[in-house]
Amino acid sequence: GYEKMPRSLKGLESAGEWPLLKKLLPELKDKRILDLGCGFGWHCRYARKEQAHSVVGIDISEKMLQRARELTDDPHIAYRKIPMEDIHFAADSFDVVFSSLAFHYVRAFKAICIKVHDCLTSGGKFVFSVEHPVFTARAEQDWWYDEHGNRLHWPIDHYQHEGIRHTPFLTEDVIKYHRTLATYINTLVDAGFMIKTVEETFATEEMIQKNPAMFDENRRPMFLLIRAEKMM
Amino acid sequence: GYEKMPRSLKGLESAGEWPLLKKLLPELKDKRILDLGCGFGWHCRYARKEQAHSVVGIDISEKMLQRARELTDDPHIAYRKIPMEDIHFAADSFDVVFSSLAFHYVRAFKAICIKVHDCLTSGGKFVFSVEHPVFTARAEQDWWYDEHGNRLHWPIDHYQHEGIRHTPFLTEDVIKYHRTLATYINTLVDAGFMIKTVEETFATEEMIQKNPAMFDENRRPMFLLIRAEKMM
Repeated sequence: GYEKMPRSLKGLESAGEWPLLKKLLPELKDKRILDLGCGFGWHCRYARKEQAHSVVGIDISEKMLQRARELTDDPHIAYRKIPMEDIHFAADSFDVVFSSLAFHYVRAFKAICIKVHDCLTSGGKFVFSVEHPVFTARAEQDWWYDEHGNRLHWPIDHYQHEGIRHTPFLTEDVIKYHRTLATYINTLVDAGFMIKTVEETFATEEMIQKNPAMFDENRRPMFLLIRAEKMM
Repeated sequence: GYEKMPRSLKGLESAGEWPLLKKLLPELKDKRILDLGCGFGWHCRYARKEQAHSVVGIDISEKMLQRARELTDDPHIAYRKIPMEDIHFAADSFDVVFSSLAFHYVRAFKAICIKVHDCLTSGGKFVFSVEHPVFTARAEQDWWYDEHGNRLHWPIDHYQHEGIRHTPFLTEDVIKYHRTLATYINTLVDAGFMIKTVEETFATEEMIQKNPAMFDENRRPMFLLIRAEKMM
């Protein structure tokens, strides 16, 4: 299962998109951080290592939160079990709201944007990654192969049909929600955010040299990263 | 060739994306408009019909400009033959800069953004459409078919490889420039624009009822539309 994947065992350095995501984060020193879908808490601990003032990590998996709690005795990290669309924090509670690869599991992206906007301070940053709409469009979420098993290209279909995708993940079926790129951007803008940076994951020469299979990451974007800012 | 296509003969109402693009335009009354890649001048004449103060249409095709000039005697529309990346207008020359399906023919998108920013008034709008990065990624720009000629899906490849694509258009080869979505957005932001709306073309139920083949327009996005604003 998920807990056996490199990113779960070895943390951030094993997540290919982390260098790109890290660059989108503001200076975290003395900042109040909210992590939506914190999982095992890797990013929460990273934030504290960067001298964040305090971190709240939200997840719905008790199992993951339990593991996250075992991995730290830091009194300035608080883990809470709650669906991220049900968060309710006072205005001006956080300077940075962060989320890594969680929103494509949630139907209520609009509600999340509104709630994040509510609890962020003015000028606060909202930085997140999701599976790219190009990646989530087809439920299969896989390459198109020739008869020898070679990857011919990445197929897209049903792009404008937003909603549930029953996708294979490891050995199980997982429910994900496909949204268009326009929906990601416009929902943020409508909630009162300014779009500061959009990134689509790719492989650097260095990554390809370490692992030639990474070349395929330049053939289609797997993750979408967005840095937005609550307008003053 | 191009001049025989419905959108060339019948104008805006024959361009499927026009209703979506029109919605992104601000009120044009009394505004000074610049149209980059104006072609036969359909949008220039539309702007004047909406009581724009004045319109400048830019194109590099003398043939298209000649036809555009024949189609109007409006003294408040000026057509100029110049590559759009070479425009040079004084600051505060325009209230709205518009472009329809032209930037994917031009290498210098960054230069265009900077120049548009320079000549727009503060708070001015920059509204444009381009072929979607999902559409321009592969030079073939075509569906993937089964042996019976059915459209199986839209293939993506080479997404992160920005630059020239030699693409078939009608009977000729045309040079287009593929850029990622991240590049479109970030180049605008870097030039000093605020992203206001992003749209990806789709077919409405009404469009599909008129022409069932339009259904495929919901399978992958063909055009990308962006409304940006020069920050005050």
